[in-house]
Amino acid sequence: MGDGMTDGAVAAAGKVAEQRMAPKVEQKVTITAIAQEAGVSVPTVSRVVNGRSDVAPATRARVEELLRQYGYRRRTASSGDRPALIDLVFNDLDSPWAVEIIRGVEETTHEVGFGTVVSAIHDRAGSARQWMRNLRARASGGVILVTSVLEPVLHEELHRLGVPLVVVDPSGSPALDAPTVGATNWAGGMSATEHLLELGHRRIGFIAGPPRLLCSRARLDGYRAALEAAGVPVDDRLMVPGDFYHEAGFTGCNRLMDLDEPPTALFAASDQMALGAIEALRRRGMRVPEDVSIVGFDDLPEVRWSAPPLTTVRQPLVEMGKVAARTVLRQARGEEIDSPRVELATELVVRASTAPLRN
Amino acid sequence: MGDGMTDGAVAAAGKVAEQRMAPKVEQKVTITAIAQEAGVSVPTVSRVVNGRSDVAPATRARVEELLRQYGYRRRTASSGDRPALIDLVFNDLDSPWAVEIIRGVEETTHEVGFGTVVSAIHDRAGSARQWMRNLRARASGGVILVTSVLEPVLHEELHRLGVPLVVVDPSGSPALDAPTVGATNWAGGMSATEHLLELGHRRIGFIAGPPRLLCSRARLDGYRAALEAAGVPVDDRLMVPGDFYHEAGFTGCNRLMDLDEPPTALFAASDQMALGAIEALRRRGMRVPEDVSIVGFDDLPEVRWSAPPLTTVRQPLVEMGKVAARTVLRQARGEEIDSPRVELATELVVRASTAPLRN
Repeated sequence: MGDGMTDGAVAAAGKVAEQRMAPKVEQKVTITAIAQEAGVSVPTVSRVVNGRSDVAPATRARVEELLRQYGYRRRTASSGDRPALIDLVFNDLDSPWAVEIIRGVEETTHEVGFGTVVSAIHDRAGSARQWMRNLRARASGGVILVTSVLEPVLHEELHRLGVPLVVVDPSGSPALDAPTVGATNWAGGMSATEHLLELGHRRIGFIAGPPRLLCSRARLDGYRAALEAAGVPVDDRLMVPGDFYHEAGFTGCNRLMDLDEPPTALFAASDQMALGAIEALRRRGMRVPEDVSIVGFDDLPEVRWSAPPLTTVRQPLVEMGKVAARTVLRQARGEEIDSPRVELATELVVRASTAPLRN
Repeated sequence: MGDGMTDGAVAAAGKVAEQRMAPKVEQKVTITAIAQEAGVSVPTVSRVVNGRSDVAPATRARVEELLRQYGYRRRTASSGDRPALIDLVFNDLDSPWAVEIIRGVEETTHEVGFGTVVSAIHDRAGSARQWMRNLRARASGGVILVTSVLEPVLHEELHRLGVPLVVVDPSGSPALDAPTVGATNWAGGMSATEHLLELGHRRIGFIAGPPRLLCSRARLDGYRAALEAAGVPVDDRLMVPGDFYHEAGFTGCNRLMDLDEPPTALFAASDQMALGAIEALRRRGMRVPEDVSIVGFDDLPEVRWSAPPLTTVRQPLVEMGKVAARTVLRQARGEEIDSPRVELATELVVRASTAPLRN
């Protein structure tokens, strides 16, 4: 194997190697100092550093000139003899969809010789700060946050460090100054509901995701939009809260079935909640899809094998991981990115959990 | 946040910091050179470096003296200013149990300030070599392999680099010179089968795991041992091949149900195959557990929510990840490890997919 990184097969990381040859002028100037000198905010300097396009041309020119003068060097995989790493951060590693996103990110970083450091910022106090210390120590080349709610002070810290940041499926913090990769949640919610309407259902229940996440809101709005377009009145009693986990689907389904006029079909905003709903119906002696039709959201690998196989809205999780990785790698190389917001298309996958309304 | 790693909260990584202070004597002596000089094999030197106990005391003393003389330094997180990283490697990131192991490893490494680099060595040609190049470039402090079949030449390379290695649920290569962490697969297979016997079943089908994995063989042997202990003849027609994935459970179950005397209960060697079997029965119009009882193996989080909730053998995946991480971290610090082979206990979890034999 000889001496590893000199091998031709890692030519894809050539840019990194090139920059290693450049003379080092580590002046330790901070983004904060540059911002003061340029008379702009720290996030603006960060946007320039990260190759974002949403900066006025004159401001960009002034900041870039100062960065050049002070010999500012991003703390990325390309600076010095640091190993090539990016960080992939979840709130918790407790869902099968986490492994789908990990797979997409890993396939992309693997090709260019980057390692993917996977972490969970648990709800435990101090855990996010511990993570930030670890991140600093390993000089990560970039961070991909997955539906993570990071304390504002830590966001600020990432900015100061000049570490590129990409957010997958953002949690709804509009102040988040980072490119985001999501799915067409609204269109997905609409297509799920339209499918049930086309099967003749008129009383369609909805089990929602956590209200703090924008993707939950988008799926709910898609559901309402489809009903309204079909001239079906929206009935607030048919919408119950949830949190994406099985248990919420189970209890939400029971609540809907206890109504005086229960729904004949359900749209659950996640596959896990759809499986919980199927189990609730099974325990009530009701059959899917004969008695109630069910549509989920995600298309996790295992729902092809649920009993019955689940009709659901496919969220391209692996592809979302790939796009996020490509974006953060481009930023780490100092390249401009195409768009601060990418939404990948969802797709309705019809299996065996939906059927025409019985008269 | 100040200057990160000097913070008291990362005192657990103190040993690493200490060694950073030590004068550097990077003589680039290799394990191969030490082995020649000592007149022992490369794996023996590797065992000494990794703190393994299975080396004769005289040999250990000779090798340690040479390591000291030549100022050999392990390429771990503790040597120089490298960041603290360990590598977690899967064959493929295509199963929900991967995320369970990642969670266990991450919780342990996170506490001591180590990052967990997650990779998949895909079946693609050259991928394992690419991974090895990446590993060398980032100077990983240790490697945890999960049921991975690593080419022998790459194993040899890990040895030469002196990178500590721990294997989770080994694939059955007895030449593997590394500590292993597994579960009590044989006892688990026995308890699953005993449970079905206690419910009165006598014709019990078995859907096997991939034959190249030792854990598959152990589960099969446990199944046979339980039958023999109960005086129930082992019928080869009731054992069908599988590979742990849903599809194999589906086809295996259909094969068993097509027998002239089909089984009244099934033990599938993985939860995913058990779910495939349930779907096969559903499509045949048969009910679980009324018509056929099913036991799985793994206890993935989602099988609490399958229809019906699955009776299964719990494999402590999170805990296995934790033990593997603690073991590799101890090796990275040059400490001796307690045992080259740890088996964590499995546990039968009875839910709703098993019922007494109907007369």
